[in-house]
Amino acid sequence: MSAMPEAVRSVDVIRVQGTVRTEDADRAAVEEPLEIRLHGRPFAVVMRTPGADRELAAGFLLSESVIAGPDEVGTIAYCQDAQNVLNVILTGPAVERLEEFLASRRQVTTNSSCGLCGRLTIESLTVSRPAVGGRLTVAPDLLTSMPERLRLAQRLFDETGGLHAAGLFSTEGQLVAVAEDVGRHNAVDKVVGRMLLAEEFPIVDRILCVSGRASFEIVQKAYLAGIPLVASVSAPSSLAIDLARDTGLTLVGFVRGTTFNVYSHPERIS
Amino acid sequence: MSAMPEAVRSVDVIRVQGTVRTEDADRAAVEEPLEIRLHGRPFAVVMRTPGADRELAAGFLLSESVIAGPDEVGTIAYCQDAQNVLNVILTGPAVERLEEFLASRRQVTTNSSCGLCGRLTIESLTVSRPAVGGRLTVAPDLLTSMPERLRLAQRLFDETGGLHAAGLFSTEGQLVAVAEDVGRHNAVDKVVGRMLLAEEFPIVDRILCVSGRASFEIVQKAYLAGIPLVASVSAPSSLAIDLARDTGLTLVGFVRGTTFNVYSHPERIS
Repeated sequence: MSAMPEAVRSVDVIRVQGTVRTEDADRAAVEEPLEIRLHGRPFAVVMRTPGADRELAAGFLLSESVIAGPDEVGTIAYCQDAQNVLNVILTGPAVERLEEFLASRRQVTTNSSCGLCGRLTIESLTVSRPAVGGRLTVAPDLLTSMPERLRLAQRLFDETGGLHAAGLFSTEGQLVAVAEDVGRHNAVDKVVGRMLLAEEFPIVDRILCVSGRASFEIVQKAYLAGIPLVASVSAPSSLAIDLARDTGLTLVGFVRGTTFNVYSHPERIS
Repeated sequence: MSAMPEAVRSVDVIRVQGTVRTEDADRAAVEEPLEIRLHGRPFAVVMRTPGADRELAAGFLLSESVIAGPDEVGTIAYCQDAQNVLNVILTGPAVERLEEFLASRRQVTTNSSCGLCGRLTIESLTVSRPAVGGRLTVAPDLLTSMPERLRLAQRLFDETGGLHAAGLFSTEGQLVAVAEDVGRHNAVDKVVGRMLLAEEFPIVDRILCVSGRASFEIVQKAYLAGIPLVASVSAPSSLAIDLARDTGLTLVGFVRGTTFNVYSHPERIS
């Protein structure tokens, strides 16, 4: 039995160049949750591209200081009864440390806002999802102008060459809010939080433009804020596309020059 | 009182082009932990670039479903007695939900391996750090050849245009291990985990090359694996530089064409 899905998936896409639309098939990097169990007990859910899962689990447990080296790993095996679940059996001193580790481990936790953090099991990722609303439409040439305008608004990037950006645009093309951060997720949280604190919320009439890839978490954050359209200069992951389709959100990727790809709900592109 | 540090910091750097080395000052994006407290209780630590901290906290709490909108945020204020700590007071239905939320919240948790996940407080980030060992040295022209060779080994990137890569090189220039993933951290965990499972560990005689930026977590993962040199094609964060300097690790950034910057321990560049 192969418990591991493919690393790349074919997705339907509409390629837009000016007024020309072409239906095509694209290849998207697969993003799927991997649940890591320790001695049968849920330990962590990691969003990853399938492939080298056992290696990922080993490296992850090292980074989390659960293990210190090869002699503390017994077996790493896929569960027979569930996809995307690995069970790890520890050996040596790690076994004794595990109990202590679990007991001492911080209870209320999360990290740089991945949208998943703290989820113990894959099942816990599933939530009911009413569709995003909003009658927003946007012209293709406005969409293609956004990445460059976002880039020009990045004051800190010019200095450092290393920051992500997120911007909210009106349908008339005004850059309403912009934020920079070393973390992609943080940049989105900052612009969303700015609108929330200004009580301009939910953000149903704005377009979110991000400087990097569109992952599951980015689409999730947009969805929770009510944003109906997300435009990324780079590639979306398979799970980002799935979530956008499920929630009625328009996901646009590879906005470069005068072209872009539409992965979901093209009705908002005029 | 200003509790918020700057977003960009000046760092000393050695710029290398072939055999020419120039000491210079560079500007690095600041990466620092922000501790978010709810009603005075530690809730999360987010690694972020300082700036728009209150907005970040608001957006983060929305993403975590702690709040649902502006009318559930009372005040967000810096703690008087600690830097980089924000305390959030909730209002409305969020107050009642908070207790329930904290009680139900998953205990043993982590996410896509950020190296910080699950830390409740800034203090918990501090660990004792013996320096990395290894007598490894590498020639500049070998270092500058790595990004292109890593790129050529990225099978999935060619298909999708959207995957991060991590590679381990020998000092003779052999690409020993390579991994691709939608997550930068995962790609590093995969190559580290591969060596660990092969019992070629600690990885004292290899160079880690990553396709993206070098953040704190990437350097932390390399350090825990014993890797003495990390090369990134893009910018390092301030905290990545600090950690590399503290732990004796050589951190190289902006490896482009025939040039690169050395941010710490240049003695490993021959």
